[in-house]
Amino acid sequence: MTIKSKPVYISSRETAEVILDKYDHFLFDCDGVIWLDEKLIPGVAAFLARLVELNKTFTFVSNNSSKSRDTYVTKFKRLGIPNIAKEQIYPTCYSSALELRKLGIEKGSKVWILGDSGIEEEVREMGYIPLGGTDPRLDTPFDPEHPLLKVDPEVKAVVVGSTKDFNYMRISSTLQYLLYNDKSIPFIGANIDRSFPGPGGMILPAGGSMVNYMSYTSHRTFINAGKPSREFLDIILEDCNFERSKTLMVGDTLYTDIKFGNDGKLGDGHGSLLVLSGGTKFTDLKKVIDEPHLFEEAETLMPSFYTESLGALIDLLE
Amino acid sequence: MTIKSKPVYISSRETAEVILDKYDHFLFDCDGVIWLDEKLIPGVAAFLARLVELNKTFTFVSNNSSKSRDTYVTKFKRLGIPNIAKEQIYPTCYSSALELRKLGIEKGSKVWILGDSGIEEEVREMGYIPLGGTDPRLDTPFDPEHPLLKVDPEVKAVVVGSTKDFNYMRISSTLQYLLYNDKSIPFIGANIDRSFPGPGGMILPAGGSMVNYMSYTSHRTFINAGKPSREFLDIILEDCNFERSKTLMVGDTLYTDIKFGNDGKLGDGHGSLLVLSGGTKFTDLKKVIDEPHLFEEAETLMPSFYTESLGALIDLLE
Repeated sequence: MTIKSKPVYISSRETAEVILDKYDHFLFDCDGVIWLDEKLIPGVAAFLARLVELNKTFTFVSNNSSKSRDTYVTKFKRLGIPNIAKEQIYPTCYSSALELRKLGIEKGSKVWILGDSGIEEEVREMGYIPLGGTDPRLDTPFDPEHPLLKVDPEVKAVVVGSTKDFNYMRISSTLQYLLYNDKSIPFIGANIDRSFPGPGGMILPAGGSMVNYMSYTSHRTFINAGKPSREFLDIILEDCNFERSKTLMVGDTLYTDIKFGNDGKLGDGHGSLLVLSGGTKFTDLKKVIDEPHLFEEAETLMPSFYTESLGALIDLLE
Repeated sequence: MTIKSKPVYISSRETAEVILDKYDHFLFDCDGVIWLDEKLIPGVAAFLARLVELNKTFTFVSNNSSKSRDTYVTKFKRLGIPNIAKEQIYPTCYSSALELRKLGIEKGSKVWILGDSGIEEEVREMGYIPLGGTDPRLDTPFDPEHPLLKVDPEVKAVVVGSTKDFNYMRISSTLQYLLYNDKSIPFIGANIDRSFPGPGGMILPAGGSMVNYMSYTSHRTFINAGKPSREFLDIILEDCNFERSKTLMVGDTLYTDIKFGNDGKLGDGHGSLLVLSGGTKFTDLKKVIDEPHLFEEAETLMPSFYTESLGALIDLLE
């Protein structure tokens, strides 16, 4: 790998300008980078406006699978960023639907979902019939006679993603599909995120923890449809017409965002920027720098650059 | 290790008699060995009666943490086995409480629980104050302002075990304790079981999957208070006055029960008996025999003996 062994701290106008000189395309994580829950991170709107001025192009790549692209467009508007198109948004509910297509699952097939409406909407838009998901019949205490515990043999894939509405009924019914027919139904996990910064910066369990739960209870591996999947990156670069060597990934999580940029060899091996406005603190980064032996493939977790936030970056530039 | 590379199939009166000749003490798993949910497995009562006749001694060691020892006594009675004493029962709600004591957590301390009433009862009986657990204030949709999301600094340990009543509130509040004060509060997991055979033989998610969830989302390891912990076995042997070389572990799960007996060197290295009346089928066992490279430490998963059920064993003996 050609990535630097230590990240460059962006703390001066000169280093901040490197970012805008060197890269033409930007991939932004959302939670912890663009917003925290329902609050835009200060300076983000100004930073995006600067990119537009400079004819830079960008997309949003979120491991959150709860909300569909349409819902993201609405959220950007609500938070005061009106001009984001659906085509600029890649949440993992959408990448999960892309994965179904790539696996060759026939249109019109049923897909069992453990997750929120975002997955249902994207799966439906891709031409499949979502089952499970937000179905209110699953909002009950566990009942072994529940009809939804009986496997529908027409289900051709299982997608597990982010949801706050899990319960034992939802998890038990999903397990029946994962075990069915000698574990032969494909199992897509929307992300591998352990946690995320929620309201007030509180760390909360993320969808990847539920994917991991289903993987553990079923004793199966899964196809990761989210960051850091290289395949997901390649689809985005191709769809968006982004040149790999001119692209920078900006994120707040080392093992998803930063690894995504590094493994994908963005920016000629210098294509990842960590912002400290989300779940990762400077002490977490310092641990990877000082004690790389504690991490699996530490070099893939090392950002090319780091800074406090997109707001800090625009402050340096102004 | 001195365990045999292939298990002996008990299919004749002669092989069945070896079991009663060679061993004086028996450790029985419950789910899948003694009962399936609310149904006693046929022949179990006769088998236990035979052991009593022969002056053999036995205890029950269950990785299920949902029910306290008192509740087990009641269940044995309800299923027609009246003479089981509390001292013969080691569910992991009890072993979790033993672990708290061993860790030196002072009596009167608060302990945060993700799990059922069994853990609450045993923790209370050991002199601690359980928080969380079945508290109905946690039966709500997620609310970031919920008072139980604020860490009580008097909590000195976290125990996670089996429960069907988990939801995002319970999991989020537990995560706050696991992350608190640089992850310094001890984290006990009641078991590592992926799944268990439920009503009608349906495979359902087990408590170990929730322990694993909390471990993944908090990025922490945990102290396993259940099988196959060697420490747990040693406590039982000492408490019950069982001679290691004369003890047989009977269970239906390779990576907990059989490993427990093998790692603990019961029966001079021949002290594990697999019954096929629970979650493990003959094809699962055959996989370990034929493709040991697929398993981590396959030799520790290999039972000394196997048979259909305790009922099959008593049939051979009569």
